[in-house]
Amino acid sequence: MYEDNLRALLSQVKDGTLDLDEAIGHLKTLPFENLGFAKIDHHRKLRNGFPEVIYCEGKTVHQTQKIAKVLARTGNTVLATRASEQDYRGVLEVVPEAVYYPEARCIVIHPSSPNTSSTHYLAIVTAGTSDIGVAEEAAVTAEAFGNSVERIYDVGVAGIHRLFAQLDKIRKADVIIVIAGMEGALASVVGGLVDRPVIAVPTSVGYGSSFNGLAALLSMLNSCSSGVSVVNIDNGFGAAYNASLIIKELENRCQL
Amino acid sequence: MYEDNLRALLSQVKDGTLDLDEAIGHLKTLPFENLGFAKIDHHRKLRNGFPEVIYCEGKTVHQTQKIAKVLARTGNTVLATRASEQDYRGVLEVVPEAVYYPEARCIVIHPSSPNTSSTHYLAIVTAGTSDIGVAEEAAVTAEAFGNSVERIYDVGVAGIHRLFAQLDKIRKADVIIVIAGMEGALASVVGGLVDRPVIAVPTSVGYGSSFNGLAALLSMLNSCSSGVSVVNIDNGFGAAYNASLIIKELENRCQL
Amino acid sequence: MYEDNLRALLSQVKDGTLDLDEAIGHLKTLPFENLGFAKIDHHRKLRNGFPEVIYCEGKTVHQTQKIAKVLARTGNTVLATRASEQDYRGVLEVVPEAVYYPEARCIVIHPSSPNTSSTHYLAIVTAGTSDIGVAEEAAVTAEAFGNSVERIYDVGVAGIHRLFAQLDKIRKADVIIVIAGMEGALASVVGGLVDRPVIAVPTSVGYGSSFNGLAALLSMLNSCSSGVSVVNIDNGFGAAYNASLIIKELENRCQL
Amino acid sequence: MYEDNLRALLSQVKDGTLDLDEAIGHLKTLPFENLGFAKIDHHRKLRNGFPEVIYCEGKTVHQTQKIAKVLARTGNTVLATRASEQDYRGVLEVVPEAVYYPEARCIVIHPSSPNTSSTHYLAIVTAGTSDIGVAEEAAVTAEAFGNSVERIYDVGVAGIHRLFAQLDKIRKADVIIVIAGMEGALASVVGGLVDRPVIAVPTSVGYGSSFNGLAALLSMLNSCSSGVSVVNIDNGFGAAYNASLIIKELENRCQL
Amino acid sequence: MYEDNLRALLSQVKDGTLDLDEAIGHLKTLPFENLGFAKIDHHRKLRNGFPEVIYCEGKTVHQTQKIAKVLARTGNTVLATRASEQDYRGVLEVVPEAVYYPEARCIVIHPSSPNTSSTHYLAIVTAGTSDIGVAEEAAVTAEAFGNSVERIYDVGVAGIHRLFAQLDKIRKADVIIVIAGMEGALASVVGGLVDRPVIAVPTSVGYGSSFNGLAALLSMLNSCSSGVSVVNIDNGFGAAYNASLIIKELENRCQL
Amino acid sequence: MYEDNLRALLSQVKDGTLDLDEAIGHLKTLPFENLGFAKIDHHRKLRNGFPEVIYCEGKTVHQTQKIAKVLARTGNTVLATRASEQDYRGVLEVVPEAVYYPEARCIVIHPSSPNTSSTHYLAIVTAGTSDIGVAEEAAVTAEAFGNSVERIYDVGVAGIHRLFAQLDKIRKADVIIVIAGMEGALASVVGGLVDRPVIAVPTSVGYGSSFNGLAALLSMLNSCSSGVSVVNIDNGFGAAYNASLIIKELENRCQL
Amino acid sequence: MYEDNLRALLSQVKDGTLDLDEAIGHLKTLPFENLGFAKIDHHRKLRNGFPEVIYCEGKTVHQTQKIAKVLARTGNTVLATRASEQDYRGVLEVVPEAVYYPEARCIVIHPSSPNTSSTHYLAIVTAGTSDIGVAEEAAVTAEAFGNSVERIYDVGVAGIHRLFAQLDKIRKADVIIVIAGMEGALASVVGGLVDRPVIAVPTSVGYGSSFNGLAALLSMLNSCSSGVSVVNIDNGFGAAYNASLIIKELENRCQL
Amino acid sequence: MYEDNLRALLSQVKDGTLDLDEAIGHLKTLPFENLGFAKIDHHRKLRNGFPEVIYCEGKTVHQTQKIAKVLARTGNTVLATRASEQDYRGVLEVVPEAVYYPEARCIVIHPSSPNTSSTHYLAIVTAGTSDIGVAEEAAVTAEAFGNSVERIYDVGVAGIHRLFAQLDKIRKADVIIVIAGMEGALASVVGGLVDRPVIAVPTSVGYGSSFNGLAALLSMLNSCSSGVSVVNIDNGFGAAYNASLIIKELENRCQL
Repeated sequence: MYEDNLRALLSQVKDGTLDLDEAIGHLKTLPFENLGFAKIDHHRKLRNGFPEVIYCEGKTVHQTQKIAKVLARTGNTVLATRASEQDYRGVLEVVPEAVYYPEARCIVIHPSSPNTSSTHYLAIVTAGTSDIGVAEEAAVTAEAFGNSVERIYDVGVAGIHRLFAQLDKIRKADVIIVIAGMEGALASVVGGLVDRPVIAVPTSVGYGSSFNGLAALLSMLNSCSSGVSVVNIDNGFGAAYNASLIIKELENRCQL
Repeated sequence: MYEDNLRALLSQVKDGTLDLDEAIGHLKTLPFENLGFAKIDHHRKLRNGFPEVIYCEGKTVHQTQKIAKVLARTGNTVLATRASEQDYRGVLEVVPEAVYYPEARCIVIHPSSPNTSSTHYLAIVTAGTSDIGVAEEAAVTAEAFGNSVERIYDVGVAGIHRLFAQLDKIRKADVIIVIAGMEGALASVVGGLVDRPVIAVPTSVGYGSSFNGLAALLSMLNSCSSGVSVVNIDNGFGAAYNASLIIKELENRCQL
Repeated sequence: MYEDNLRALLSQVKDGTLDLDEAIGHLKTLPFENLGFAKIDHHRKLRNGFPEVIYCEGKTVHQTQKIAKVLARTGNTVLATRASEQDYRGVLEVVPEAVYYPEARCIVIHPSSPNTSSTHYLAIVTAGTSDIGVAEEAAVTAEAFGNSVERIYDVGVAGIHRLFAQLDKIRKADVIIVIAGMEGALASVVGGLVDRPVIAVPTSVGYGSSFNGLAALLSMLNSCSSGVSVVNIDNGFGAAYNASLIIKELENRCQL
Repeated sequence: MYEDNLRALLSQVKDGTLDLDEAIGHLKTLPFENLGFAKIDHHRKLRNGFPEVIYCEGKTVHQTQKIAKVLARTGNTVLATRASEQDYRGVLEVVPEAVYYPEARCIVIHPSSPNTSSTHYLAIVTAGTSDIGVAEEAAVTAEAFGNSVERIYDVGVAGIHRLFAQLDKIRKADVIIVIAGMEGALASVVGGLVDRPVIAVPTSVGYGSSFNGLAALLSMLNSCSSGVSVVNIDNGFGAAYNASLIIKELENRCQL
Repeated sequence: MYEDNLRALLSQVKDGTLDLDEAIGHLKTLPFENLGFAKIDHHRKLRNGFPEVIYCEGKTVHQTQKIAKVLARTGNTVLATRASEQDYRGVLEVVPEAVYYPEARCIVIHPSSPNTSSTHYLAIVTAGTSDIGVAEEAAVTAEAFGNSVERIYDVGVAGIHRLFAQLDKIRKADVIIVIAGMEGALASVVGGLVDRPVIAVPTSVGYGSSFNGLAALLSMLNSCSSGVSVVNIDNGFGAAYNASLIIKELENRCQL
Repeated sequence: MYEDNLRALLSQVKDGTLDLDEAIGHLKTLPFENLGFAKIDHHRKLRNGFPEVIYCEGKTVHQTQKIAKVLARTGNTVLATRASEQDYRGVLEVVPEAVYYPEARCIVIHPSSPNTSSTHYLAIVTAGTSDIGVAEEAAVTAEAFGNSVERIYDVGVAGIHRLFAQLDKIRKADVIIVIAGMEGALASVVGGLVDRPVIAVPTSVGYGSSFNGLAALLSMLNSCSSGVSVVNIDNGFGAAYNASLIIKELENRCQL
Repeated sequence: MYEDNLRALLSQVKDGTLDLDEAIGHLKTLPFENLGFAKIDHHRKLRNGFPEVIYCEGKTVHQTQKIAKVLARTGNTVLATRASEQDYRGVLEVVPEAVYYPEARCIVIHPSSPNTSSTHYLAIVTAGTSDIGVAEEAAVTAEAFGNSVERIYDVGVAGIHRLFAQLDKIRKADVIIVIAGMEGALASVVGGLVDRPVIAVPTSVGYGSSFNGLAALLSMLNSCSSGVSVVNIDNGFGAAYNASLIIKELENRCQL
Repeated sequence: MYEDNLRALLSQVKDGTLDLDEAIGHLKTLPFENLGFAKIDHHRKLRNGFPEVIYCEGKTVHQTQKIAKVLARTGNTVLATRASEQDYRGVLEVVPEAVYYPEARCIVIHPSSPNTSSTHYLAIVTAGTSDIGVAEEAAVTAEAFGNSVERIYDVGVAGIHRLFAQLDKIRKADVIIVIAGMEGALASVVGGLVDRPVIAVPTSVGYGSSFNGLAALLSMLNSCSSGVSVVNIDNGFGAAYNASLIIKELENRCQL
């Protein structure tokens, strides 16, 4: 993309159809839209494969509303994470087709249609019931980006037979997201049983010396199973984004 | 249990009374009950000696209610820890015989009858008055599982004669749970005076550099007395569970 | 694999060609080889896609030697990481075809032949010269498993034009491993420029408040770019293992 | 100042116009005003270049009110940071000309007039929208002290082209304040592109393992770009104070 | 013991066979032997069930030698942990019957004879080969105190079938010691499969963010399996001491 | 005290005026009063020089009320720290002469009369206005125990002349308590200027990387001035208790 | 610079003197020199004001030697920090004019001539004798870049009069670097006495709870004096680099 | 002292016997001696009660030698801590009367004669044998300053009767230094039994989660016994310095 743009622009300079100063301006002016408090990055879909996502925490309802409106105008999928119901009501005023997922705390606008011909899917596995909020953030994210998701909840290692009963569904997934708090052992156990990449999400579930997810985070980073990589504590979105990149690549590259 | 089950199942396969695919299914389908958000582990009593326990924090009242109902149906003892009064009211609607212990923040259904012929008991020793909430979680847990408990509260090392006055009762216990915040020194002192296992519970009582129980936790892990093992900060339940395992073993093995 | 094995075994039981006790034994005896101090997991390639790897740190030369010998006998690729030259000399005595990569501190036996028809490759990008040891561990691992590797070293953000000059090669890779110490900013910058999964490896390069890689680790976990997942400090092997899983999946699934 | 004062005082002693005990008293009595709970440091402007600033957190409204009144009486610029609206209403009662900046949470009285002949200015650059509160504290501080400020917000490295589009304005500034949470990579990237001092402010924006700004703090301290120094988490005021010292020096020394 | 002693002593006072001052002296002089740099605690076996143990780290060879000699004189079992070969040579000079276990780094003198009529034993389970040093410290300790030990090494969760193959031996043990570094997940997995107390020992095996065993320690303290208690990092001795207390109690109480 | 008691008791045994079993009881029964949830330590004044103090945090109003009542009955000084106004109202119901110090959050009953003949006093020095709450806890504690206190507030090192103006009063104190948050530098500066013991109290005043007082705590522990010892964060009471011990000793020993 | 280059290049494209593909190549190929293991950034002097510096730790002698040779060829000042004597001997072989400063552990080639007409200088102030190594790294760096340096060593707050005796020299400096270990209080004290920017360098000098410089680092970040910014632990180079940027700006801007 | 000096100096100015400029010089020139790398603080004894002490770690033998020589010339007591045998040999060359205490790692020159008429003494109590090095640093320090010391070693809480047997000697001391590693519980136990100030020294003795003394440090800071203050890890010198200040005050004030 970048090289093509350069070539086109330079051709215009050569042809004299583009003035030197204008060319310099173009080379500097890149495709974002300035709201003052935010610079909307319309370029992101081309560059990163997925459009910009609104992280609502630390933004006012008004800011979220304005960013959502600008992004929705493009027709692309819009995803807002960590959104409160109040955020949702604000967005709804300006984008009536916005949908809210309260357990996931996500707002979705124009979700990608699932690729029905694709056989790819990702499995989201949680250790306990309390991890489901993070899991739903991951699931809604992945689905908004057009992926199929298999939810496998409450199969932690304290009752490991619950995990083994679901092993087939897990093993056939293209990517596996494992979400666990407390000691986070589930990531290592799953990682030892599959031949697909495992993305581990530590959660802040636990008490005392879990130190708000630090125990699970360290546990997952030190996994004795080799195929495990880790994202931030409670970052269901990030795990799903990573998984979506892998599945998109599977779909794109295999069509070649 | 596991081997017997395997033998029975394989005999049926041999006899032709069990179809191959059914057998495969059985080998995979283990005894848990799927509520969607939770997979109730009915198998736990056989495997771990005690039935599944509901940890209420991070669960909605509705989830706690549903899990309690399913577990209560089995007739086993049901224990719910970290339960608020609101949790209790929810459970009471579906299990009228549920009892609430507010200081311990526990709900108990069908407590095990104490083994009256047993002379075994566990001592629960606290350093201060502020540790009593954690101590009661331990005491209610142990009693729900059918054990006798001796409560010895507020005998911290700042007035060590209070401890010595209770030493006989402590020394005769089968297991001793020591619960302390601040510097947690009581665990080492008790550990140096007895010939029974000491399970230490650091509490988040303290301020400033206690860092919510970290000081007591490190103190107990580094005890210069050898017979001390440690559970998580404020984890009265875990200590009582461990102690109950030891006493159950004493009762079971001695009947042989 | 698991299901097929079960089916075969149960068929033998049904046929009477396998005795009940033998069958029980088989169901328990899984494919590992017991050296006493180690249980070689011959099953791993089937289960995880890649054979067992020897992590030499904390093992005696003698132990490494014996494990390498047993693994090499299978004809599979053998990889030993964190291997000293002394470890290598020990292995060489029993496996003459072993090759040593001193910068990577790896021993390789029977490397997988590169898949010449594959157009897939992974890019390994380092911030500085001091990160090259970790990068070579990643590169040798990936190559031992049959992957093509593009090395792009010393392109940290202090001179960000060095990165941009290599952007094409990075963007066309299937997976990108970013290796950086100090503040680890390179992972976020690369993550913001590509549409492929980025696996970030913090290194212990740095001094003072880098706290042996903690600064880079936290930095990468908190990346504002969404497509970044993280492995342990200095864990070049782990990053390459993850990347290899993704590329293997690309190769396998696309042949379908 | 100090030496001149000493000389004047000693001359008076020599002349006999100043009594020994009075002289001793003067040598001890330095210019502060004692409110009991606070000792107002009227001397600070001479000593530090800028007058004393009121840090409102941990002070009662009444205390803030009284200190503001005493400082305002001198005619100097008065700045109160971390001020709530309640603090402002209290100050307004006794200093009617006080102005409140809610986003910056600052109260300003008698701001310094901007030096219109000066071409110096400082750039304040933020990674995201959520960093703007800290950035405004810096901007209002710098402006209250008579400096020109260029605000450049939401140009984080996830969309690095937004930064490059503003590079000219950043490069021409005399001092650059970079404000970022999460992984704080922006400080290193800016530091690598400019030849002016960069003062980095980590913010507590982020979640999970950002540990309330620790990740960004460590990242900035370990910057691979050499010209970066760091102030406390969320300390927009401190960064602006430092930048103002540098610009004041530029203005003062160049007039010589 | 204490009460009997008091009674005997007071009787002598009553009888006049013991002088008041002597009695006071006796009440103060408790059974330890003062070497100046150490006070040998001959009383410990009565009080704690096992005699004093020599922790060699931080002691000179000469100190270890002298303490060992004094303790050996009593005929009780003597155990010295963290002993170097140099420590051993020193002890051997004064106690020719001392035996050294290099892998465990322990010196043993007069080991307790195993109780051949006892069916009790403890299982020592390690995740990896590198944990064996700690495991042997535990095994030698337990055996020195007269217990039977079942060693089950290298069965970590990366190849969980290795664990299941040994499950029977583990489940029948009276106490289970689980020793693991890295993420320490093995403790939770074993804890979920057995109905006996599990004593977990985190080891300093691992690299990067294992932070010398901190990751495994936090993991074990936060185990989602209830019957797990924890001792200090690498503290094989402490785990075995705890386990021995439980087994001793099983043997003693069952004879009543 | 202890030896005299023993001698008296043993004499009674010898005389036959005390029965053996009674004597044993006395030797065990030490002077505390059991309220069930608390064991009031009446013995503390003899043993520690000051009576027991009620730490209200973590106690119910009812518990505080009952302990205060029992302690007040003895006529000794009663001090309750970290007391809310609600705690005070509860205590007032049962001890009408109780007095409340809201800034210090202390309740005092029967304060010791100041020793008017004593020339000893302690200086309490704070860095800022926000440290005054902790300082008043220290001051009220010291005064309740009968000491004279010199309050010197808001003399932090940012305006060090304010400190030098008060140096005489500080240097003549018998003990100096230095209370500071943020970087806590005041303790080192004072410690370098006086020849009396300095007890440093870090406070949780500060933001960002002060980590609730950790920065000041570490600073004070590492003071380059030799005569500084440290108590817990925000522990004004503890500092005053220590200082009172020293002054009491000065008063007691000098009368000999 | 960047804009001029673009303009020239685009003019050539317009003129037809530069081919499109060549132009694209130039736009991408930025001025660095690729040694394979390192990419020498010749562009840095233009971009950052000072040429690239060699950080020797983590580089082999051979790598340092090659980088030094390439950089020296340009005639610019070359600075290598954290250089061992062995590094120096390596560099000397290829750059005979290289000079070594053992206390600073720096190699300097072609130092900038001091600007004799400049009245600007920076003061380097240390708390103790043990901080001198870090201070000399700062001093040699600043001098290599052509600045005048005033060294003021061993004036820590334990004997604060030593500081006051040097106050004039400190106050007249343009920038002040304060270097201290232990509790780092000197930075706050100096910051409170001057009206120039203070750059604080925590050192790893200290023991116990200094945690290798963490105590001083936190102390300096939390300075109650406003004009203090901080660089990494022991990072004398970074502080001098920052200070040199400020002085360079003073010199450059004042000539306008 | 300060005021007298000022008065004398001003009198000379008044009399005309002192020139204005000389007077200014004197007011600035304070009594230290500049060795370049160190500024010897001869003023310290007047200001702090004890002369300057040489902390050898981080100084070259040559620096220690020169400082020792200058300090010894004054005839005051000279103390050098953390001195290696090499340091000692260096000092001995220039100060033949220097004495070395290898266990304490201290060099002493001109020790103060013990005050034979004084009945004051300090008790130094250690938990274990491994704490003796730190204890001897404290003891040698206190004795060098003219104090009597009672050593009570190896009385940790694992065998608490060893402590009680020494209680009389401890209770009669004027100040008690408690030195302990591991969990540091001894400080709290002693603090609960005495009415004298307790200065606690955490040591780095312990392993695993003692984190080089952090566990003991936190434990002591959080002591439930009120009369305990704390110095840095392994800082025997600091504790003795504090204790000496208290005893000096007892001796000085009681003579008035």
